[in-house]
Amino acid sequence: MTGPVEVVGIDADDTLWHSEVYFERTERRFRELVERYVDPDVDVAAALVAVERRNLARYGYGIKGFTLSMVEAAIEATGGAIGTEEIDQILAAGRTMLDHPVDLLDGVDETVTALRDAGYRLVIVTKGDLHHQERKIMASGLADRFERLEIVADKNPGTYRRVVASMSVDPEQFAMVGNSLRSDVLPALEIGAHAAHIPYAVTWAHEHVDHDGDIDTLDSFADIPTWLASLT
Amino acid sequence: MTGPVEVVGIDADDTLWHSEVYFERTERRFRELVERYVDPDVDVAAALVAVERRNLARYGYGIKGFTLSMVEAAIEATGGAIGTEEIDQILAAGRTMLDHPVDLLDGVDETVTALRDAGYRLVIVTKGDLHHQERKIMASGLADRFERLEIVADKNPGTYRRVVASMSVDPEQFAMVGNSLRSDVLPALEIGAHAAHIPYAVTWAHEHVDHDGDIDTLDSFADIPTWLASLT
Repeated sequence: MTGPVEVVGIDADDTLWHSEVYFERTERRFRELVERYVDPDVDVAAALVAVERRNLARYGYGIKGFTLSMVEAAIEATGGAIGTEEIDQILAAGRTMLDHPVDLLDGVDETVTALRDAGYRLVIVTKGDLHHQERKIMASGLADRFERLEIVADKNPGTYRRVVASMSVDPEQFAMVGNSLRSDVLPALEIGAHAAHIPYAVTWAHEHVDHDGDIDTLDSFADIPTWLASLT
Repeated sequence: MTGPVEVVGIDADDTLWHSEVYFERTERRFRELVERYVDPDVDVAAALVAVERRNLARYGYGIKGFTLSMVEAAIEATGGAIGTEEIDQILAAGRTMLDHPVDLLDGVDETVTALRDAGYRLVIVTKGDLHHQERKIMASGLADRFERLEIVADKNPGTYRRVVASMSVDPEQFAMVGNSLRSDVLPALEIGAHAAHIPYAVTWAHEHVDHDGDIDTLDSFADIPTWLASLT
């Protein structure tokens, strides 16, 4: 452990393990099922995004809300013409996502061990569905190297203040890493903590933000130890 | 504050505010919508319970999983004959539950204040959907009297050990109250904490347990201070 950081906060979905790729796959399946029932000029994907946004405050993040929005959008976009067979297949696609094995990103397992062995205290900070996130963390095999697990409804500066307080450190002793500028990087920087962006190949439309200024950006999870050592 | 207890853990659904009554109301609506499509001898309510049990490990607790199971059961019980209009109404019933205002049980507001003013440190310990529980706690107006909020995926002895540790007390300084013997009372007693049962009018089928022995039982939430003072 070198530099000022004692506690490292790590995002989960698309930082520790793949997630968005399964949403994309399910959305393709949704389009196949729904497009048979609509005119070729109807943008089924846009209809789903509109329903998701309408439900976001109500459902929050996660696969169950996504599945409910798919069913609602399928009925709405087809004016009720879609069959119950297709709705059943949409439900099945949601269940498949929930049951999917955890698929770690490259370098995660070794790097988490290296960070722990270097003396950093590690905390997972993830939003989404409590039950599903707990299941994934248990299935990941990573849990024993983390001191704490924070599953939060939203990631804003107040969230990171609570995380830092719960680990009994000051913000400048805390570093956050993740694939979302909006959720992982900007609110952590706002409270005076360190943060680095590890972009994932696919970025969810709702997560996109424009930003100015220099943001520390890492090519891969395996670059975290070097980045931490570079902080002063 | 008298007696050995310093921290009081309080369950939320059907202890602080009504919840099960809305599940019952929605289930009646589900039966009305589905029964039109099945023979009179088909037990639609039992079909829903079967689907809920099948999905419990996958969906966990909460309204979103309940709504997904209703849609699945509606299609399954009717052999796909139910219409998309009815499925849309099932989705709407789930949204109505999520959007329902928080309806505190009698005596909760005054008693929570009295406990806080008497010097007890209060923590909500609730399972269910993280996003929805946070919304309800904020909407309840009770949050300022609680030191901590623990939304957990399950309530077992390990859960209560973590809660007690997070409040920096010993189990015998912790008392848990709630409407579920299985979730609120028995696992808290198992770790050596105090616990009291405050039965609610309706008990969810999945929550039912048989038990032997003396369990402290309160008629209402307002009886908590007297119960705490009686502990030695």
